[in-house]
Amino acid sequence: MTCELCALTAEPLWRGAKLSVIAVDDANYPGFCRVVWNAHVKEMTDLAPADRALVMDAVWKVEEAVREVMEPQKVNLASLGNMTPHLHWHVIPRYADDAQWPSPVWAPAAREVNPAALELRRARLPRLAAAIRTRMEQA
Amino acid sequence: MTCELCALTAEPLWRGAKLSVIAVDDANYPGFCRVVWNAHVKEMTDLAPADRALVMDAVWKVEEAVREVMEPQKVNLASLGNMTPHLHWHVIPRYADDAQWPSPVWAPAAREVNPAALELRRARLPRLAAAIRTRMEQA
Repeated sequence: MTCELCALTAEPLWRGAKLSVIAVDDANYPGFCRVVWNAHVKEMTDLAPADRALVMDAVWKVEEAVREVMEPQKVNLASLGNMTPHLHWHVIPRYADDAQWPSPVWAPAAREVNPAALELRRARLPRLAAAIRTRMEQA
Repeated sequence: MTCELCALTAEPLWRGAKLSVIAVDDANYPGFCRVVWNAHVKEMTDLAPADRALVMDAVWKVEEAVREVMEPQKVNLASLGNMTPHLHWHVIPRYADDAQWPSPVWAPAAREVNPAALELRRARLPRLAAAIRTRMEQA
């Protein structure tokens, strides 16, 4: 069985020796990013402590960029991996008018999102990509 | 408005100067734990880097204890806080026969869980509490 994160072909926002940052193409959640460990590892506690710190440092950098550029109401962080047990973190900007607010994005939709609001958020994505790359290049 | 995590009255499994570990009373998810930052802080990136590391060290300790004692198929980690913007991490043991598998626990239920399986998991909770306390007392 092929792991879809091992076989990842989409161009990441940033790729390093051990992990990558990708922009998730979710119509309802512009700014949704993932931090993906390059190797096929299942749980955070399967990684050595220094590698766990490396992963979380990337998550914090992406969270900072998301907060700065996307100005969300809240950031949601999650590492689930039930269907794809290849370590990855979801970093999701949340807004009071988004499809599932205040529930997690995996709950049934609560509303349709105003297309104009989504368009304004999508317009920030090039700036988000730049902000993530800048942070990821910093030690 | 009172924050329910600031006003927390339930006895935690462990309480330290900066954070606490609590057992979540969820009938479908025995072994579900939370790591709660004691002060009312909203996002991980609102904490100083050393405090972020302290939080994640606690999350890894709880994850290790959950893996050792509960023997889940997968561990799910999440920091959401849309409804309660007071920093807390969910650490959730997941099983192929649980109510939402393989979806996140916030998705609609996919099945009723076998009561005997739940009973066997609940029987491990005292051992889980001891394993968490032992790890949290270690530097």
